[in-house]
Amino acid sequence: MEALGGSMFSVAGAGESHGPAITTIICGCPPGLMLSRAEVQQYLDRRRPGSNKLGTPRREADKVVFLSGLYTHDHEQLLAGPQITTAGDDPQSEPASATTYERGYTTGEPIAAVVLSGAKRSSDYDQLAGPQGEVRPGHTDLVKHYQSRGFTDPRGGGRASYRSTVTDVIGGSIARLFLAEHFGTAFLSSICRVGSLEAPVSLSTHVEQLALRHAGGADRSIPVAEIEQLQQRLCAGELHTLDEAFEKAAAALISETRKQGDSIGAAIEVVGVNVPTLIGGPLYQSLKLRLMGALGGLHAVQSCEMGSGLDVVARKGSENNDPIRADGYRSNHHGGLIGGITTGMPIAFRVGFKPTSTIALPQKSIRKNLEEIDFELKRGRHDPCLGVRAGVTLESRMAIEVMDAVLSHQARRVDPDHFNLF
Amino acid sequence: MEALGGSMFSVAGAGESHGPAITTIICGCPPGLMLSRAEVQQYLDRRRPGSNKLGTPRREADKVVFLSGLYTHDHEQLLAGPQITTAGDDPQSEPASATTYERGYTTGEPIAAVVLSGAKRSSDYDQLAGPQGEVRPGHTDLVKHYQSRGFTDPRGGGRASYRSTVTDVIGGSIARLFLAEHFGTAFLSSICRVGSLEAPVSLSTHVEQLALRHAGGADRSIPVAEIEQLQQRLCAGELHTLDEAFEKAAAALISETRKQGDSIGAAIEVVGVNVPTLIGGPLYQSLKLRLMGALGGLHAVQSCEMGSGLDVVARKGSENNDPIRADGYRSNHHGGLIGGITTGMPIAFRVGFKPTSTIALPQKSIRKNLEEIDFELKRGRHDPCLGVRAGVTLESRMAIEVMDAVLSHQARRVDPDHFNLF
Amino acid sequence: MEALGGSMFSVAGAGESHGPAITTIICGCPPGLMLSRAEVQQYLDRRRPGSNKLGTPRREADKVVFLSGLYTHDHEQLLAGPQITTAGDDPQSEPASATTYERGYTTGEPIAAVVLSGAKRSSDYDQLAGPQGEVRPGHTDLVKHYQSRGFTDPRGGGRASYRSTVTDVIGGSIARLFLAEHFGTAFLSSICRVGSLEAPVSLSTHVEQLALRHAGGADRSIPVAEIEQLQQRLCAGELHTLDEAFEKAAAALISETRKQGDSIGAAIEVVGVNVPTLIGGPLYQSLKLRLMGALGGLHAVQSCEMGSGLDVVARKGSENNDPIRADGYRSNHHGGLIGGITTGMPIAFRVGFKPTSTIALPQKSIRKNLEEIDFELKRGRHDPCLGVRAGVTLESRMAIEVMDAVLSHQARRVDPDHFNLF
Amino acid sequence: MEALGGSMFSVAGAGESHGPAITTIICGCPPGLMLSRAEVQQYLDRRRPGSNKLGTPRREADKVVFLSGLYTHDHEQLLAGPQITTAGDDPQSEPASATTYERGYTTGEPIAAVVLSGAKRSSDYDQLAGPQGEVRPGHTDLVKHYQSRGFTDPRGGGRASYRSTVTDVIGGSIARLFLAEHFGTAFLSSICRVGSLEAPVSLSTHVEQLALRHAGGADRSIPVAEIEQLQQRLCAGELHTLDEAFEKAAAALISETRKQGDSIGAAIEVVGVNVPTLIGGPLYQSLKLRLMGALGGLHAVQSCEMGSGLDVVARKGSENNDPIRADGYRSNHHGGLIGGITTGMPIAFRVGFKPTSTIALPQKSIRKNLEEIDFELKRGRHDPCLGVRAGVTLESRMAIEVMDAVLSHQARRVDPDHFNLF
Repeated sequence: MEALGGSMFSVAGAGESHGPAITTIICGCPPGLMLSRAEVQQYLDRRRPGSNKLGTPRREADKVVFLSGLYTHDHEQLLAGPQITTAGDDPQSEPASATTYERGYTTGEPIAAVVLSGAKRSSDYDQLAGPQGEVRPGHTDLVKHYQSRGFTDPRGGGRASYRSTVTDVIGGSIARLFLAEHFGTAFLSSICRVGSLEAPVSLSTHVEQLALRHAGGADRSIPVAEIEQLQQRLCAGELHTLDEAFEKAAAALISETRKQGDSIGAAIEVVGVNVPTLIGGPLYQSLKLRLMGALGGLHAVQSCEMGSGLDVVARKGSENNDPIRADGYRSNHHGGLIGGITTGMPIAFRVGFKPTSTIALPQKSIRKNLEEIDFELKRGRHDPCLGVRAGVTLESRMAIEVMDAVLSHQARRVDPDHFNLF
Repeated sequence: MEALGGSMFSVAGAGESHGPAITTIICGCPPGLMLSRAEVQQYLDRRRPGSNKLGTPRREADKVVFLSGLYTHDHEQLLAGPQITTAGDDPQSEPASATTYERGYTTGEPIAAVVLSGAKRSSDYDQLAGPQGEVRPGHTDLVKHYQSRGFTDPRGGGRASYRSTVTDVIGGSIARLFLAEHFGTAFLSSICRVGSLEAPVSLSTHVEQLALRHAGGADRSIPVAEIEQLQQRLCAGELHTLDEAFEKAAAALISETRKQGDSIGAAIEVVGVNVPTLIGGPLYQSLKLRLMGALGGLHAVQSCEMGSGLDVVARKGSENNDPIRADGYRSNHHGGLIGGITTGMPIAFRVGFKPTSTIALPQKSIRKNLEEIDFELKRGRHDPCLGVRAGVTLESRMAIEVMDAVLSHQARRVDPDHFNLF
Repeated sequence: MEALGGSMFSVAGAGESHGPAITTIICGCPPGLMLSRAEVQQYLDRRRPGSNKLGTPRREADKVVFLSGLYTHDHEQLLAGPQITTAGDDPQSEPASATTYERGYTTGEPIAAVVLSGAKRSSDYDQLAGPQGEVRPGHTDLVKHYQSRGFTDPRGGGRASYRSTVTDVIGGSIARLFLAEHFGTAFLSSICRVGSLEAPVSLSTHVEQLALRHAGGADRSIPVAEIEQLQQRLCAGELHTLDEAFEKAAAALISETRKQGDSIGAAIEVVGVNVPTLIGGPLYQSLKLRLMGALGGLHAVQSCEMGSGLDVVARKGSENNDPIRADGYRSNHHGGLIGGITTGMPIAFRVGFKPTSTIALPQKSIRKNLEEIDFELKRGRHDPCLGVRAGVTLESRMAIEVMDAVLSHQARRVDPDHFNLF
Repeated sequence: MEALGGSMFSVAGAGESHGPAITTIICGCPPGLMLSRAEVQQYLDRRRPGSNKLGTPRREADKVVFLSGLYTHDHEQLLAGPQITTAGDDPQSEPASATTYERGYTTGEPIAAVVLSGAKRSSDYDQLAGPQGEVRPGHTDLVKHYQSRGFTDPRGGGRASYRSTVTDVIGGSIARLFLAEHFGTAFLSSICRVGSLEAPVSLSTHVEQLALRHAGGADRSIPVAEIEQLQQRLCAGELHTLDEAFEKAAAALISETRKQGDSIGAAIEVVGVNVPTLIGGPLYQSLKLRLMGALGGLHAVQSCEMGSGLDVVARKGSENNDPIRADGYRSNHHGGLIGGITTGMPIAFRVGFKPTSTIALPQKSIRKNLEEIDFELKRGRHDPCLGVRAGVTLESRMAIEVMDAVLSHQARRVDPDHFNLF
């Protein structure tokens, strides 16, 4: 099964950019987590095309409906979700209809969610269709065409579209809610570079300071209020970032780049705070391996760094090793994981995105039949800077991997009291 | 991921008996298979509650809609499926709507399908709900309640319901269409026992004879026309079985049992014909292991036999070994697999079902709080004999496992010509 | 990875009948289990060819050595295992040598074990080698030859040999020790049929009675002493079976069959007692599905039954449903699993083996090039009745699947106290 | 199963730094590849501690023996490998002995390999042992101790040791040989940074130029002779790198750092050339995701970049998109993968390693019981710069992932001619 996460918590998705819907199935959430559609929707809203004027002009409502895996004896609450209807086979036959779930406890069974796609303009993609279709540089048009022997959906990038990350965000939301309830864990992100503009403050450094400040405390975790305050600050502006001056400059650069018919790269910091310690493993079950894959493997990502990242190359061991005291690590060059296992410090990654491949400027390309052309995009809507909307997806993928690692660690602590019936 | 099949072809499902829908995601179907909703629907119709008067009185339309994984440049054909609509969040907000797929080529990407559930009478299950809920003997009520610490959906058996096999049938349909197109493979089943009534003719023996008759021919496979004729004969009567006299007697026995408020066991033969040879493996990738699991693991199954099954215990090796000639095996005691690998003879299994656990007669049971009661079912709809509708699910599960084994075998035959682009 | 078990506890193996060794890697055993080589060896000794005069005349010492995954600060105990040595590349170079592990705690890391194969007479298999090699009916000779395009190891059945079950037994031993320590679980088996001889007493019935007798007690489990007594009774005779009279008759039948140059089928009951409740799941994670696959998928098995097995087909629901009282189920027609989840009653399966394919009598067969021949085996050592040595492998496979299901269930019970460091 | 690779080609390992051996099982290599011990040994020799005077002073012969999965009718060739012997249980019992494989065709069955560990000085680690043991900053000592509840092997880092990469290299060797035979694929690496010293020439740029030069040719691939020449140049010096002047400076820096009792970071470029096109996928089966995980997840790695890596953040789309002509991509900013699928350009990654955590200089740390200490390492052997020996492991991991993606792609191209027997 193609899925995010691992064998204990896994998230499978289906759906193309211009298809009817993105469908998601999440397996492995333990029973007993109260889940409401509104909470998941709030994360989807951050990902939604049209949510940000610096993003794509495509507008999608992206409302999620839940079709399974929840229950509560209070049916009024459970069955307060939107009605879902499918027309009959033929005009005469009766439509089928059902009420979806609004709010209930997870049952441990697979959770299915559907997000319909409304705002499709597939005629935008006529230029790319068929064996004479033109190939957009930097896109999967060419390789998917040959890999599938022509049987690919070219509309809007098909399955390779960023739209597929609806699944990541839904799966991630459930992981986040579970981890928040059990450990107070939160996942945050901040745009730290756009083109050659660099944010003067780092989210990683910021949460490292927060973590150190509370390390000696009673429960050692960063209080919810402080996390929410930070979250609000990140969400306050046009760009999801910590620094206001950087935000304004970056927003201006993105707008200007869009006007030039061009696109621009960006980098995002993504962190997990109050992460449970002792999860992961040193080798092939390494949480570092999993996060490098899940974050570094996202569309358009070209670099992935943990902790001090590329900077460590220039360091001596005596500079780079983080000192340890009785209440924990005293710095976080390591980025929250040593030997692929969580240490209690925030998990900190930085991810670099290439500039969006879709641009209006002319480029050297070919048709699918390999005929050379001067390519110029006729129509299509796209983000000029992928960093603008990618943060919530990175947070989601981090949450999914942490969730799987939590369940895997718990599996090794067998308590016979959990296996009794009569 | 909880899924049927294996790593190359896998089928994941979600959805409870009385939930809004059964959702299915199928991964791994190669690109280029023409798939129409009608073809899949035809298999679902055989599974559908209400399709057979000897089955449950619950009536479901069980219309499938496809949400991803298909494409054809002919959008008129592609987009001729039923409309799907989800109401807005609140009465004011606009509903989302999209056209589902009617007919297209598989793209190699995940295929999502949804079947809404209409005919739910959840109040039937009040007797079972909550911590004082009554426990139906033979059902998962008790173990699921304690396993999930009370957070289970008790309505109609929840996820453990036979309704979940909608997923098996959809996934199986796609495997069947692929295998039919490439190898002329077909999967058939026949009820061979109901209670102590035994069918005088065996489907396994019948297809063994067909296979032997054509073994010396040019393409060595059973012609499509003969398979279709057999298929029609199986579908002709009230029960899916080869022998007309047995069918009438068995139908009468089932009706009578239902009237007594009781249920009855059954056994089904399930076979695959024109199955590609050389797939599977001797040990942990054994196709026998996978089929024993997939068929023997279905709800209510208590026995699973391959080829001559239990009869081989009484045999000598000199009786049981199937002779081999230049055009193939001359008998099929082995059941189509030797050492977990297909031999070219039909794959032949026999599966025994317990009588339906739900009965109207009084029984000794407890409440979920372990208080002893004399249990008597108040309401609920059920099949008096699970064998009546189970055949198509067994065929589907066999098809899914064969499909995965075909792709796995192909993976070992690397042809560099399939890896060229420019 | 080809492996037994599942994602939480898995057992991979490598090695052919006449290769240098059977190598095993076991992943997922939690840290802290004291494991000694002697305990594992004792199970291997039951499987060992040559251990029983009714089995194959091949004699193997089958001594296991452990190469990883154990530790104790007491190095004297840890490093008391046999020395392992590999000669150098060339006569001049020095051999490498290391001390293997005798006794230590599992560390949670993969455990590797090697069993060398000594008693190989590969010249016995010249008859079968090469493209003109003869095909033994009932064996994988033919399908493996074509599946691998001739690149198969024909000596003694190669990888398809029963010798591969050394891995199952080593993996199963570790699962057994873990489950015994935590839950008092034990796995037992008894030969219940040889040819048409049937044992008058059933192991399933016997342990059902034991379970019922102790159900009302303080810890509800069968006392260790009673299990050991039963174990001793099973091991006392020439055949691993409960009934002495049956044992003598069956042993005589096997001896006589061997003299005739023939072989004979058998059936074995395999049970798990004091099995933790609430493990498994209703659908694709069903423990029934896994056990049907693992037991029914073993070499030469043609049938697999759970609980009352094939008998349930003839029953009414009112006869078959097991009554439930405050202290548990009152009978075990279900066989320890309802809806694929353990109920607290013993897990009870019955497995039917075909007569060994290798016989001395002449048979119709072909060469690998499809030329027809009258086949007569020139040389080779084999068991006349596979049931004689198969019991311990079935017990092992059951233990592996139960172990994986235990860890998976535990994963769903997240306790934040297990995730603390500072 | 903990393994590298995926479901079609997977590599499992077991063994600790100071345990008796590293054991490896490789599953999924198709039948028919001629494999010799010498070829695999040659890659292991590059990884071997003691192979480089800039590396650890620990000396290991690291001779591999093969125990399964190979065969050839020429038994003299097959059975020319080193003898393996295990002493008996007790001084009286006879040792077991077998001849390992020297050279044979893969059979498609699991391949087992063992490398014994000789040069262990476990007393070096007394400082770290037990509940009062000291914690080395930057190591897994602390987290592994608590994760395993004290049941960890502290000697030399236990399972978390770099010694575990013996498995990666053996598995990678088999993948490399298969890919070389079928596609002429080769994997190369070059140290490109040590501390703040940067190599003036880039391996990625170098192979990009080679690829472009041959793109218009008949078979479009880089000739074997040119690859071998490049390989020799890389292996010529003390450090595995392209540029001689950089090599000398970097070697001097490493030596000097070692003398100071310190360690230093490094970065390595790793590339795949003549890689088959069309393998991988855009989302969760993305080859980019898998490579980011496998390379970025290796011990001590803190950053992983593909193609132009972090540089793309500063670029415009018009600068970064690689032009496409009839004979292929004209530049390789993308790094050989677009949308997670190979394009025919070399796969190019850059990986950054932290300075070795083990240093002789004093550091702030704790005991496992959390008591604060001034930590000073008493004894132990280590690499002052992990980059020195890591290249071959990165190449191996890349090969393993490419191999798995090749087999997965082939699985989708079903050719019925591969499924015939009679």
